[in-house]
Amino acid sequence: MSGSSFGKLFRITTWGESHGPAVGVVIDGCPAGISLSEEDIQVFLDRRRPGQSRYTTRRNESDTVEILSGVFDGKTTGTPISLMVRNQDQRSKDYGNISVSYRPGHADYPFKEKYGFRDYRGGGRSSGRETIGRVAAGAVASRFLNELGISLRAYTKAVGPFTVDESEYDYSQINENSFYMPSNAIAEKAGEYVSTLMAETDSCGGIVECTADGLPTGLGEPVFDKLDALLAQAVMSVGAVKGVEIGDGFRAAGSVGSQNNDPFYMRDGRVCKKTNHSGGTLGGMSDGSRLILRAAIKPTSSIARPQQTVNESGEDIEISIRGRHDPVIVPRAVVVIESMTAVTIADLLLQNAAARIDNLKKIYADK
Amino acid sequence: MSGSSFGKLFRITTWGESHGPAVGVVIDGCPAGISLSEEDIQVFLDRRRPGQSRYTTRRNESDTVEILSGVFDGKTTGTPISLMVRNQDQRSKDYGNISVSYRPGHADYPFKEKYGFRDYRGGGRSSGRETIGRVAAGAVASRFLNELGISLRAYTKAVGPFTVDESEYDYSQINENSFYMPSNAIAEKAGEYVSTLMAETDSCGGIVECTADGLPTGLGEPVFDKLDALLAQAVMSVGAVKGVEIGDGFRAAGSVGSQNNDPFYMRDGRVCKKTNHSGGTLGGMSDGSRLILRAAIKPTSSIARPQQTVNESGEDIEISIRGRHDPVIVPRAVVVIESMTAVTIADLLLQNAAARIDNLKKIYADK
Amino acid sequence: MSGSSFGKLFRITTWGESHGPAVGVVIDGCPAGISLSEEDIQVFLDRRRPGQSRYTTRRNESDTVEILSGVFDGKTTGTPISLMVRNQDQRSKDYGNISVSYRPGHADYPFKEKYGFRDYRGGGRSSGRETIGRVAAGAVASRFLNELGISLRAYTKAVGPFTVDESEYDYSQINENSFYMPSNAIAEKAGEYVSTLMAETDSCGGIVECTADGLPTGLGEPVFDKLDALLAQAVMSVGAVKGVEIGDGFRAAGSVGSQNNDPFYMRDGRVCKKTNHSGGTLGGMSDGSRLILRAAIKPTSSIARPQQTVNESGEDIEISIRGRHDPVIVPRAVVVIESMTAVTIADLLLQNAAARIDNLKKIYADK
Amino acid sequence: MSGSSFGKLFRITTWGESHGPAVGVVIDGCPAGISLSEEDIQVFLDRRRPGQSRYTTRRNESDTVEILSGVFDGKTTGTPISLMVRNQDQRSKDYGNISVSYRPGHADYPFKEKYGFRDYRGGGRSSGRETIGRVAAGAVASRFLNELGISLRAYTKAVGPFTVDESEYDYSQINENSFYMPSNAIAEKAGEYVSTLMAETDSCGGIVECTADGLPTGLGEPVFDKLDALLAQAVMSVGAVKGVEIGDGFRAAGSVGSQNNDPFYMRDGRVCKKTNHSGGTLGGMSDGSRLILRAAIKPTSSIARPQQTVNESGEDIEISIRGRHDPVIVPRAVVVIESMTAVTIADLLLQNAAARIDNLKKIYADK
Repeated sequence: MSGSSFGKLFRITTWGESHGPAVGVVIDGCPAGISLSEEDIQVFLDRRRPGQSRYTTRRNESDTVEILSGVFDGKTTGTPISLMVRNQDQRSKDYGNISVSYRPGHADYPFKEKYGFRDYRGGGRSSGRETIGRVAAGAVASRFLNELGISLRAYTKAVGPFTVDESEYDYSQINENSFYMPSNAIAEKAGEYVSTLMAETDSCGGIVECTADGLPTGLGEPVFDKLDALLAQAVMSVGAVKGVEIGDGFRAAGSVGSQNNDPFYMRDGRVCKKTNHSGGTLGGMSDGSRLILRAAIKPTSSIARPQQTVNESGEDIEISIRGRHDPVIVPRAVVVIESMTAVTIADLLLQNAAARIDNLKKIYADK
Repeated sequence: MSGSSFGKLFRITTWGESHGPAVGVVIDGCPAGISLSEEDIQVFLDRRRPGQSRYTTRRNESDTVEILSGVFDGKTTGTPISLMVRNQDQRSKDYGNISVSYRPGHADYPFKEKYGFRDYRGGGRSSGRETIGRVAAGAVASRFLNELGISLRAYTKAVGPFTVDESEYDYSQINENSFYMPSNAIAEKAGEYVSTLMAETDSCGGIVECTADGLPTGLGEPVFDKLDALLAQAVMSVGAVKGVEIGDGFRAAGSVGSQNNDPFYMRDGRVCKKTNHSGGTLGGMSDGSRLILRAAIKPTSSIARPQQTVNESGEDIEISIRGRHDPVIVPRAVVVIESMTAVTIADLLLQNAAARIDNLKKIYADK
Repeated sequence: MSGSSFGKLFRITTWGESHGPAVGVVIDGCPAGISLSEEDIQVFLDRRRPGQSRYTTRRNESDTVEILSGVFDGKTTGTPISLMVRNQDQRSKDYGNISVSYRPGHADYPFKEKYGFRDYRGGGRSSGRETIGRVAAGAVASRFLNELGISLRAYTKAVGPFTVDESEYDYSQINENSFYMPSNAIAEKAGEYVSTLMAETDSCGGIVECTADGLPTGLGEPVFDKLDALLAQAVMSVGAVKGVEIGDGFRAAGSVGSQNNDPFYMRDGRVCKKTNHSGGTLGGMSDGSRLILRAAIKPTSSIARPQQTVNESGEDIEISIRGRHDPVIVPRAVVVIESMTAVTIADLLLQNAAARIDNLKKIYADK
Repeated sequence: MSGSSFGKLFRITTWGESHGPAVGVVIDGCPAGISLSEEDIQVFLDRRRPGQSRYTTRRNESDTVEILSGVFDGKTTGTPISLMVRNQDQRSKDYGNISVSYRPGHADYPFKEKYGFRDYRGGGRSSGRETIGRVAAGAVASRFLNELGISLRAYTKAVGPFTVDESEYDYSQINENSFYMPSNAIAEKAGEYVSTLMAETDSCGGIVECTADGLPTGLGEPVFDKLDALLAQAVMSVGAVKGVEIGDGFRAAGSVGSQNNDPFYMRDGRVCKKTNHSGGTLGGMSDGSRLILRAAIKPTSSIARPQQTVNESGEDIEISIRGRHDPVIVPRAVVVIESMTAVTIADLLLQNAAARIDNLKKIYADK
């Protein structure tokens, strides 16, 4: 098992290498009867497509998705949904010079040690193109979540040291700047910062935040498959992510119980919380409040400036990574984090359906 | 599936409620031929046992483990290892008054919403006693890891605002203070802080750090089952954990590529790294350096001071949680985090064994 | 993974060896809110208990089950249900003489080759006592199925060459004879046959048939997790089972399409079938008719008469297996086959709940 | 989860409908370093391709496979292998008349009940074309098995009532007749029989047998994931299979222990068996002898003669299924059964690699 599947009931399996013929995903377990078109998926893929701003790689691919199975008369059939995107702009020659060297910050070295050899073309399976399958699956999961009144939102909270404080959020600005930040003002400063780094052939990282509204209470399985635990796996499994937190996260570690506990109260006959330090989960289950998670993304590993490293022959060498690389991957990671969140929630919605005998009696009432 | 299993090949399934007859774990897939005794497991359980310092609950249970299967002639047989700890000190009456109220910070409300009713005695399945199965499994995993020359170390990095900087670490002091901190001096200050909180009927959180040495390079499966991704699930699935990071973690988000990349170099014929910002993983696989992870733990939710909340009848009420509660759960969480790390590594060691045809030819050479 | 778990959502994990301290099962994923008592389970266990007729081993154990978790106020809580039966009558000395020999028909030889050593006491993990966990889980599954109006029936169709033809079935006689046959007359002949074999220190096999009524149509997942495919695994995984068939089974291989196809027709507004050659499945899904499966059970391998074999030192030897052994295991296998059928159906009922978006809308309507 | 995945470590996920754009499979977990070409896979696909004899459907598709990922420099890389076959000859109009009727013997009715609607074109997901993914995966698994010295053979044992007795087997004749029978003489009689049925617009079934040589002893996991149990699932999951047996199978049910037990003896320093009634498994693990399994295949459900059935409006109707249908599916099922056997063995070979600590020490010796 090379670990290319995620989810138990809403289960996605991605495949494909950066410079192979195609990349794709198979989604097994999507409920039948949900309207789905290639356009629904393309919208998501376009959000992660390169070449859209001066801060992203200029590798120019249309990344057009094809639905190969699982949809009939415009609706999901309950059978596996196979989605494929052909790789167009392969230009293998760009990568030839690094075929025998281990790039710092990349998977080259452990990949070679693990499998005995490796597809050195553009990172192979460890390329950012692997996320195409995730995003395509996220689009399908989002269609499903929408049917149940659940909506997600993701954006860039920080680029390098430039952070948007929650009090400054203006969600309407997210799609107005190159970084998908909820503040055009801070995005502008971030842009200047990134431009400087580009001139210095350097790169930076940042923080992505994702929220979900409309979750039923009680989503998530109590012990190992907690909502937050599966989100942590889902998000940490995205290349370049080095940290995940829910709600107050690491800040909670420095807080005290009387402040960190969210008091419950009744409003309009519903149980509500006065604050949301928990980020929407209690005991690993959704608590009725907004789900909030953050992912820390490291600086892009591919930088043009010379770096010390070794080659496969065991020699100390210097390497300069040429080619097309994002100085900051964060804006393109936004839709990836959102997609993994959507997939995780979709899976737990299906699992939770079987939690109670009265749920099952509703379903099998008129068998 | 109520999510009580973790791992694909080295698979653990925990069971049991705080005030039921017993708690336990079944470990399926532990390789045959590893020496294992109840004493090996008891040593781990004693590290999480309450009543050991003035900063932990005085619930006094011996938590004696019984091996029910899977061991013969002092060695694992390859069949499931069933481990059980009887609950002794149940005193249900302590918890009676909260049977119809939702404690802030606890799982009570989502549990009730999910299942329709709940075992209100001591948190039921969401109690900290659920971790006994994890720790017992961690002890078994650690025996296995030791056979392959892998060793783990976990300790408290921070209690509330009192943090031990890496430059101050003295590992020899970890077992010399009540908090398992690698600095007696800072542990002393933390102790004064916690004493003050206890007087104020309040609580605090902290940060646990865990490292692993001796991992083979290439451990972890490239996409969803990355070493760091599964560790994130494993650690985030521990109650009260709100954040997980690997290596520089959230600090990496503010760094630049030329600093965050760890240069490779050769030493004594082996590939080494000059720095370890990555925390021992590249592309989700172990990179030959020390594995480093941190978990952010929220303040104990159970506090004696009055809190606002609601009851099951939908009334706003005030609640005071009496009984025995840790003012800070961090020191007892240390062995839990270490155990989950051990179990995750054990599972990936088994998965990785099948990665290459030449590995399999070694095993099946003399069939 | 030593393969001790079965099911995806209603997931059972059995553990225990014949002569270890105990045997048991953990059931993870049983829906909350089902009434369940130890008595419900004991009734099933008593059906497989030895020492009940002259045709079964006289190993005398009460096999009393203990519920260790997952039940509160007499109902399942949705958390794992841990069930344990202590081994009482261990008498290890009976088995000492076979500790270094490979018994023909038993798992001794492959077990040793697989794991490097083996628990030779009473077959260890490969003992018939391993089925206690299956039967306990089957009792729980049956409670669940009953809530949805599904009922199972299992019985002995054949003992050696003595077969009850379907036209002769009298279900009311099943519990009136030692073999659980739906014909006292044929059971009597079977009894004489088995008595003769006992005198000759020989053994025989037979066929168990199991049916299920009240299944909703469409149960089973279309490709690999077909209802009949999972039943085949479930039933073939019972020790001594060498064949499984659904409906006409092997007879269908010799039939023609115009006879084997079951015509549909309408009755009282429901789709019905005029015949049931399919045994209740079409395309791997339940088709609204009675589910019918059969398991072929080989003769008991343990026989007292001398047999040729080899020992662990690689010497040709003769062995006589003394001790308490059933001359025919079939009657005790009846409840095991029924239990595995119940567990399989329970799992697929949970999986099927998530098949359609309108099912999920019913459940999440009032979130 | 619509059940489209099989295997735990060597895990295959098939997708695709009869009249969608394509069908395919993703194989996750194939070890790295195995040489693999499209030609290796095409050879297998050609064995199941229609239009090869007068007894198979004349739907004429080349079924050309494309490797989309997981292979580099002619060798498997350890990452998922994605294989696709485009559907060419779709001619949907042939199937239009059955879009609102339930064909007897087909999945139409339960499919509609399960999902609320269905892809009625050529059976959709329940079409025989679903097996293309299985066979492509089987080709890959076989390449892997060959590397370890394991070889499989499958053939038709019976067509309707015409059975080849084991004493008459001539393996060299398997590829010399249209039915893949190990006897040209009996194949000739079967051919006459099938011709008669075709004239009568009827169909028949038969029995496929598959063997495996060269298995290491101890393959298979002791309880639920026994070698024979997983083979039973794998084979029963093939459409039209109604029964599975191992070794003597149902015949064993009528035998006695003294005959059915296979005596062990030593030959050239190896443990051997004098007979092989067990069909190569003991306690669910391979026992060093030839693995033997049989699958009972029902008569083709699609027959041109008028049949009674109902339509989706709940009316009794008569249906005649026109179009291209095999009068007997058995010869084309041979490679499908062999493929599922190969995939099952491949998976258990990987699982078994982690069974013993000394296996793992061999692999991690020079980490």
